Amino acid sequence: MSSISIIGSGNMASAIGALALKGGNTVEVIGRDADKARALARALGDGATTGTWGAAPTGEIVILAVLFAGAVPVVSEYGEALADKIVVDITNPFNADATGLAVGHDTSVAQMVAEAAPASTHVVKAFNTLFSHVLGAGDPVDVFMAGDDPHAKARVAAFVESLGHRPRDAGDLSMAHWLEGAGLLEMGLARAGLGFNFSLGVNA
Amino acid sequence: MSSISIIGSGNMASAIGALALKGGNTVEVIGRDADKARALARALGDGATTGTWGAAPTGEIVILAVLFAGAVPVVSEYGEALADKIVVDITNPFNADATGLAVGHDTSVAQMVAEAAPASTHVVKAFNTLFSHVLGAGDPVDVFMAGDDPHAKARVAAFVESLGHRPRDAGDLSMAHWLEGAGLLEMGLARAGLGFNFSLGVNA
Repeated sequence: MSSISIIGSGNMASAIGALALKGGNTVEVIGRDADKARALARALGDGATTGTWGAAPTGEIVILAVLFAGAVPVVSEYGEALADKIVVDITNPFNADATGLAVGHDTSVAQMVAEAAPASTHVVKAFNTLFSHVLGAGDPVDVFMAGDDPHAKARVAAFVESLGHRPRDAGDLSMAHWLEGAGLLEMGLARAGLGFNFSLGVNA
Repeated sequence: MSSISIIGSGNMASAIGALALKGGNTVEVIGRDADKARALARALGDGATTGTWGAAPTGEIVILAVLFAGAVPVVSEYGEALADKIVVDITNPFNADATGLAVGHDTSVAQMVAEAAPASTHVVKAFNTLFSHVLGAGDPVDVFMAGDDPHAKARVAAFVESLGHRPRDAGDLSMAHWLEGAGLLEMGLARAGLGFNFSLGVNA
């Protein structure tokens, strides 16, 4: 069981929040728009709470469920309020037509978030290769992860298992670049005829 | 049924050649080292032939099964001998410790091969996300492909199906960069504990 704070109130926040509660975790929803955060917490039910924007989240694991362009600004704004937290970056930095990444070729949103966060914050990339409706559909899927801190990755892996999904460790945080690229690859597969009801996974 | 020429005589050449013959295709093996090519053709049996290095391959589809550093030089050396062919680049341009790509951030071996090849040659990236022993094990796996010419991709897709595997079109040739990145992602997964008996695939 984990304590989870979710910054954001969109489709991924909703899908992860619902699965988290079902899996016996506690969930706090935080939004810059407090009304939206309250609405999501109410919709989730099951004891979901709301937190105060900018204050230290109550969760051990903080899911950064904002649009990619907001990830670094939000983490910068939070500053020391994220000290000692595990921050999970789920974003996909697609360019306008989802044919390329809108970040530098030797970095990733996750690495940029790690640079912006306090030194005691551990950043893990995860969930970005999953469409929210596929993540929430119930069938077990592979959740690829990348991060530099083994303990933080183990905590996120346990959380992923509580959701009924399979954690798949891809290595250190520099692999986040290729996980973001895998998100792009999925967009290519979708456009080339596969549609959006699938996920990349491991066949072993 | 396709006519296939394989340039190379390593593990991938052997795995693709064996499956191709089993699937009712014709196979020509071509090597700079003619003895090695002959040895592979003999080992494959089933009517596999050998071709002359540098001469026009007999196959409609030419599998470029060389190490990544050799791909562009070989295609340049072949020059017009590859006119009108479908060239399938299967390479992975990993750096020395397989933590990054050894090609530029806005290209791929496949795109560099296309630039080096005659204008009438159609290049398709495929097979690079598959370890040779997984490809050859018999269970159906996903073969990701990228390429600019729909007809060429359709011919490669039909060939992939003849092998008992599933073609997965990821889009145009620029997606080859992210397929090469997916190969790198697999190396990260392997190192992080998954080992080498898996492939990336689509769960739909």
